[in-house]
Amino acid sequence: MVKDMESKSNMPLYYKVQNYILDLIKNNKLKEGDLIPTEMELSNMFNMSRPTVRQGLNTLVSEGYLKRLKGKGTFVTKPKILQESTRFIESYNREMHKKGLIPETKVLEISIKICPDFLVDKLGVAEGDKFIKLKRLRYAYIENKEDKKPILLTTVYIPYKKFPNLIMYDFEERSLYEVFEENNIYIKKALREIEARLSNKESSKLLKINEGSPIHFISSFGYLDDGSIIEYSESIYPGERNKFIVEITR
Amino acid sequence: MVKDMESKSNMPLYYKVQNYILDLIKNNKLKEGDLIPTEMELSNMFNMSRPTVRQGLNTLVSEGYLKRLKGKGTFVTKPKILQESTRFIESYNREMHKKGLIPETKVLEISIKICPDFLVDKLGVAEGDKFIKLKRLRYAYIENKEDKKPILLTTVYIPYKKFPNLIMYDFEERSLYEVFEENNIYIKKALREIEARLSNKESSKLLKINEGSPIHFISSFGYLDDGSIIEYSESIYPGERNKFIVEITR
Repeated sequence: MVKDMESKSNMPLYYKVQNYILDLIKNNKLKEGDLIPTEMELSNMFNMSRPTVRQGLNTLVSEGYLKRLKGKGTFVTKPKILQESTRFIESYNREMHKKGLIPETKVLEISIKICPDFLVDKLGVAEGDKFIKLKRLRYAYIENKEDKKPILLTTVYIPYKKFPNLIMYDFEERSLYEVFEENNIYIKKALREIEARLSNKESSKLLKINEGSPIHFISSFGYLDDGSIIEYSESIYPGERNKFIVEITR
Repeated sequence: MVKDMESKSNMPLYYKVQNYILDLIKNNKLKEGDLIPTEMELSNMFNMSRPTVRQGLNTLVSEGYLKRLKGKGTFVTKPKILQESTRFIESYNREMHKKGLIPETKVLEISIKICPDFLVDKLGVAEGDKFIKLKRLRYAYIENKEDKKPILLTTVYIPYKKFPNLIMYDFEERSLYEVFEENNIYIKKALREIEARLSNKESSKLLKINEGSPIHFISSFGYLDDGSIIEYSESIYPGERNKFIVEITR
């Protein structure tokens, strides 16, 4: 019997198994590829029925922390981060915090240039107008995790006229959406397109994935209340580290 | 000047260029890789300003029918089908019809079996319960198009108890959602997860893509009003033929 678990007595029984396994993973006592105790062992350990143990493990399986292999047992896997940027307009930092992950950002480029043709079209600006480019590598990790790997590579383009001072902010410390809102810029609508592609040389190197790995390529337009475009972005999410969730109701 | 275009006089001017090019593509007079007339030529042809011509072409570029190559001109590309199944709960057939595409379905398997463990979990049924499996290859093509290629491979699992007669329908003629609704089964909510993966041997052969091509792997749960699961599905969309659109507002 695991004693210290019993104190948290107002949570459903199966949470105990769940939290026990999750803690072992978070503290690196169980690592990717490790076999976890059998249902029978956990059932004895917590003095609960096997269906209850199974219920606890099911959530971890569906969240991608564990994987069942027939006749072999249940193993620890590296879960893909469930990206909700297809459901909410929210900053990356806030989204990761909500998942209990620690976000980190490396700014690869911030610059002001004259819009090339493709950006004139995308941003709906006049020929000769300037734009701000912000290229970032973004990380997310669990506490005590050493093997920090990038979660995405993202380049955002903003019409210079919309926010000339943008370049003065430190985007390793601040999120773009936070800065937007501080300056009373509110994104009203976002339109995102998701493509499945293979990673190229440059992005593979930056993202620390094998060249030719499957990636999500997401292009996104952010619109203001008046229908004008405040940002166009292109992001690369390694398929091995990310999956996207979409909820539709009617 | 193109005469027969002028009769449709109540549509915006730039639609004329758009429809002209689109008609050439649909009638196979312009094929993948072909160079389209220059903006100057189109401007003379339709007696309209170059910015208007450009506006007309922009939509076709953003929809993926055309691609601009710097210093080379504007070319016809094979557009990826913009899948809206991340925005609406709608049958594939209806979605394709709305895009002016002709859907077609090949049923690879329809069967009734006992749920294996993973399906007991997914469908939320009891051990020993039966399920219906429906595996389909789905196509979509423009009229007169000979080179019909599959757009997706989809396998749907339905708890047998929810709809024992399902197996009696011909799913090459009917859409599953249509049949559901005819039988007063309404999907209230859908939860979809999008992963980027590489195609395996079996799916590559069926979908006529190279093995190891990037694919969207989409798993989806459909819920009834009472919160129970009516369907769990796994679908493979070749990255080269599909992209997904998501719209978020706040």
